[in-house]
Amino acid sequence: MSDIVRETGKRLRNWGRWGPDDERGTLNYISPETIVKAAGLIRRGAVFSLAIPFNAKGPQINQPRRFNPIHRMMITGPDCTTGAIPFPGGVGFSDDMVILPLQCATQWDALSHCFEDGVMWNGYSANEVSSRGAKRNGIDKVSAGVVARGVLLDLPRAKGVKWLEPGYGITADDLDATIAAQRVAVGVGDVLLVRTGHMTLCREQGGWGTYAGGDAPGLSFRSADWVQQKQIAAVATDTWGMEVRPNEFPDTYQPLHQVFIPNMGLTIGEIFNLDDLAEDCAKDGVFEFFFVAPPLPITGAVGSPINPLAIK
Amino acid sequence: MSDIVRETGKRLRNWGRWGPDDERGTLNYISPETIVKAAGLIRRGAVFSLAIPFNAKGPQINQPRRFNPIHRMMITGPDCTTGAIPFPGGVGFSDDMVILPLQCATQWDALSHCFEDGVMWNGYSANEVSSRGAKRNGIDKVSAGVVARGVLLDLPRAKGVKWLEPGYGITADDLDATIAAQRVAVGVGDVLLVRTGHMTLCREQGGWGTYAGGDAPGLSFRSADWVQQKQIAAVATDTWGMEVRPNEFPDTYQPLHQVFIPNMGLTIGEIFNLDDLAEDCAKDGVFEFFFVAPPLPITGAVGSPINPLAIK
Amino acid sequence: MSDIVRETGKRLRNWGRWGPDDERGTLNYISPETIVKAAGLIRRGAVFSLAIPFNAKGPQINQPRRFNPIHRMMITGPDCTTGAIPFPGGVGFSDDMVILPLQCATQWDALSHCFEDGVMWNGYSANEVSSRGAKRNGIDKVSAGVVARGVLLDLPRAKGVKWLEPGYGITADDLDATIAAQRVAVGVGDVLLVRTGHMTLCREQGGWGTYAGGDAPGLSFRSADWVQQKQIAAVATDTWGMEVRPNEFPDTYQPLHQVFIPNMGLTIGEIFNLDDLAEDCAKDGVFEFFFVAPPLPITGAVGSPINPLAIK
Amino acid sequence: MSDIVRETGKRLRNWGRWGPDDERGTLNYISPETIVKAAGLIRRGAVFSLAIPFNAKGPQINQPRRFNPIHRMMITGPDCTTGAIPFPGGVGFSDDMVILPLQCATQWDALSHCFEDGVMWNGYSANEVSSRGAKRNGIDKVSAGVVARGVLLDLPRAKGVKWLEPGYGITADDLDATIAAQRVAVGVGDVLLVRTGHMTLCREQGGWGTYAGGDAPGLSFRSADWVQQKQIAAVATDTWGMEVRPNEFPDTYQPLHQVFIPNMGLTIGEIFNLDDLAEDCAKDGVFEFFFVAPPLPITGAVGSPINPLAIK
Repeated sequence: MSDIVRETGKRLRNWGRWGPDDERGTLNYISPETIVKAAGLIRRGAVFSLAIPFNAKGPQINQPRRFNPIHRMMITGPDCTTGAIPFPGGVGFSDDMVILPLQCATQWDALSHCFEDGVMWNGYSANEVSSRGAKRNGIDKVSAGVVARGVLLDLPRAKGVKWLEPGYGITADDLDATIAAQRVAVGVGDVLLVRTGHMTLCREQGGWGTYAGGDAPGLSFRSADWVQQKQIAAVATDTWGMEVRPNEFPDTYQPLHQVFIPNMGLTIGEIFNLDDLAEDCAKDGVFEFFFVAPPLPITGAVGSPINPLAIK
Repeated sequence: MSDIVRETGKRLRNWGRWGPDDERGTLNYISPETIVKAAGLIRRGAVFSLAIPFNAKGPQINQPRRFNPIHRMMITGPDCTTGAIPFPGGVGFSDDMVILPLQCATQWDALSHCFEDGVMWNGYSANEVSSRGAKRNGIDKVSAGVVARGVLLDLPRAKGVKWLEPGYGITADDLDATIAAQRVAVGVGDVLLVRTGHMTLCREQGGWGTYAGGDAPGLSFRSADWVQQKQIAAVATDTWGMEVRPNEFPDTYQPLHQVFIPNMGLTIGEIFNLDDLAEDCAKDGVFEFFFVAPPLPITGAVGSPINPLAIK
Repeated sequence: MSDIVRETGKRLRNWGRWGPDDERGTLNYISPETIVKAAGLIRRGAVFSLAIPFNAKGPQINQPRRFNPIHRMMITGPDCTTGAIPFPGGVGFSDDMVILPLQCATQWDALSHCFEDGVMWNGYSANEVSSRGAKRNGIDKVSAGVVARGVLLDLPRAKGVKWLEPGYGITADDLDATIAAQRVAVGVGDVLLVRTGHMTLCREQGGWGTYAGGDAPGLSFRSADWVQQKQIAAVATDTWGMEVRPNEFPDTYQPLHQVFIPNMGLTIGEIFNLDDLAEDCAKDGVFEFFFVAPPLPITGAVGSPINPLAIK
Repeated sequence: MSDIVRETGKRLRNWGRWGPDDERGTLNYISPETIVKAAGLIRRGAVFSLAIPFNAKGPQINQPRRFNPIHRMMITGPDCTTGAIPFPGGVGFSDDMVILPLQCATQWDALSHCFEDGVMWNGYSANEVSSRGAKRNGIDKVSAGVVARGVLLDLPRAKGVKWLEPGYGITADDLDATIAAQRVAVGVGDVLLVRTGHMTLCREQGGWGTYAGGDAPGLSFRSADWVQQKQIAAVATDTWGMEVRPNEFPDTYQPLHQVFIPNMGLTIGEIFNLDDLAEDCAKDGVFEFFFVAPPLPITGAVGSPINPLAIK
């Protein structure tokens, strides 16, 4: 039954497209020209942060590996005001640290985050991602990204609902209809931000609930060809896992990841907070913007926490 | 002897300038207009990452609190290829985590990072920065920043040297001379990137040595008035601590921090890798660019690791 | 209303009892003689571990600071069997790490864990316990402890119930009645293990529930004088916080800690798993044993995870 | 050339000796009788901690995976004395946490720590030790250990030197000679503490130097048969890696581990601080004692930090 997954992956496989040594995948669709053109979208000087707060109240509830960020101080105001840690001349300092899974909040998946049959993007062995980190396709290989034109596709608004229901699989038709409703084009090298409203639902419910790993709206497996044809650089959603859950085929796990990451080399963003941006786009009718989301260049990392910015 | 520090701080104090509740300080100099204008500097679509690699070989050597990032895998390729951690349908995943001091590599200091006489920016008590984190002036308060015009001041190039020697204090005259040599203006709301060449020196020496906390070139305490007059939004350097070390007065510790952060409310960036950008600027003679460096919005954090981008 | 707390603390204060520089408190009641005598209790060669498992399913649920242990591998079997991390000659190795609050599971509180009016055991300032760790009264000061005679007081068994109800405060009379029922004496330098059955209740309920910080049975504040008179070296319970919760006085927080730790210098153990031991003691009627619970000598720590052993 | 390693391992293999499901290996040599007998060695009530301090100044210098313990406070005295974190009734609390590799300081290796040809103790696959931890042979399987008779073999004292030189491989003859010189017997179920003096050398040199991973004295590969014949429960040394370094054969890495752990099922202790104990044993001529070193029962861990106690 999972043959459709492998077949789709094989059909949409981009290996070698940007050379045998490529570790950037579809980010290669971004060119100096698309960046310069995207800069023209900065018209109002309005900046939107698309990150959720990084703290202990994040969505990682009862997950097997991922936990919410643990932020701890290493030196504090009271250390200084009491003189417990002395500084000369009236000055004082604080320092802090964080412990976090790189996939715990708003994030990029690196191309080393997902494998198919023991192989990852561009044909590298999954064994290149050992306990020593990713020798290939690490997030550090795209440290000067992601800078691109961004396009928000606000599915629930286009459909006139508050949010897509958990389990709703977004099809190519849905995407085209939203594009048409929003009068915006999707072009080569764009970063596509797909709003499902799932985070809005959590807000209304007053808690994350099963946001992490539970049922969720998301891209249908059947949108894979559409995404490939559009030649987008990256896709991100306001959900935990980008694709619809429950997954659409038995005996698979996140099958769209299996096509997007190891086969297409598509960078995926998750847990993006798109609500404020969506509100603004609905107001001014402009769903395109300059998009910047630099990963932390952690050597050999298979993902990165990010604070993506949309600038209009 | 430290009275000059307190006096300077008092003279340049910006408390209340942006209202009694402000927690953003000089980032307020950035306006929608300056952002739109800065976008016009994106002419070639060239992106420069100004972060050093985040890994175990970073500069935090023998520091009292700060250590280099500890990146560890939570699930790996070999877990999947051996079937030790099973997934259906041929897919496999990797995940990872990091433990890092927020000030260990390329970073923003939050306005809660430095105090004077028990008080921080805009008059808040340093005790607001307890082991629970910063209730005031946390990095999360500037999550939609920093987006601005950036200007590189390449001091060693302007002076015709490879780097400024450790202990060299950069004066207002030095800054003005560099501005003149580079034929670039510094304006309200700019982010100033001051290259000292100290990281170049480390590269040539083949190691970080005493980069973290040792002698270093940097801004002289006497540049404080100049910085205030320029109304810049933030200043960053390629050094560990922005200001010259050894510090210029006895019985002080990072006295320019004491003026900049708690008094002026100036955001400071440190450990910026400016060498590639400087090379490019020298080549095309353009020392201004669009600058984006979003902090991770860690709730209550007194700093943030960043991957600043300069886009030309 | 909290004056009774301060008055009791003052009345039972042991400061100076073992010299002005003492950092071991009531552990000083243990002498070479009591250790040799306790060794005579090793008659069957039966060893009981009193620790709960240290893992992600521990009791730290929704706590403000404490979290369950985060255990992660640093090199694994699959790294070796795949050759991803190569070793010569057929050998392979695994390594791992843990991140844990020192108070997250079975633990000793150090004498630096609790203060009264800014002062800790033996009169040292609480400011000696800064972000740099405990300069005084750290757990490292008792690294050769705790070796002593142990006595189990099995309250619910003596009372003929499965467990004491949450909110039940154990009085001196309860303790005396249990001692009488068990026909065991409590002597100078003993470690007292007080079983409330609260962990049994959690087992029966199938989860920790509000074990950490919620209502619980425990020592009544009014048992303080009894404890002082017995000259015990340490006391430990099968609960999160040793003393009865809710606390017995308004406007206090863990008032018995306030008496025991900073005033009496009593070492407290918490989250001890006493059920297996209790079962055995009930069977053979012997409630005394050789007790060994060495802390990890973490420099400046205010507590330590432990695996206490009772040897009969 | 490494065939001697595999051949020796095969010859000394104890698989199945304690049943097909055994995960405790040679700890099975310890019996209730040996424990009771060992208790008789507690004659003076003198307790010796054999752990080094767990702190940032530990021996893990420039190691690929292991780092020194990172101890950080989570709430401090100054938090309380300033009222920054308020408590009622004059009480205050501190809490802390630690991040540490389980093999960073004084430690037990679990039987899941070392593999040979993809297999570990008792024939289990090394793939059972995935990123999820050790499903087999984890340290949690020996949580009620290690309680036994301990014997110190003080090699340098028997030889009349301050320490064995790095590179010195301790032979069966050396061990027998020391036993003879010390007039102590080694019996079934004993824990053998082998002092090389390497930690003394570090103390004299004023730093750890290459203690972790560099040249060191230690057991010669040729002592393997002797160890097997003695039927000891565990062996520990005052060195980083128990066996002599450089290793005695080309194309091997810690070959004695390869024999001891996966083949014999022998528990190994490392980085034991034996100097104080050795001093005492030399003084009273008694080299045997009651030995207790409970591991932290971290579920699935391949090692554990410990504070071993020798009680005389």
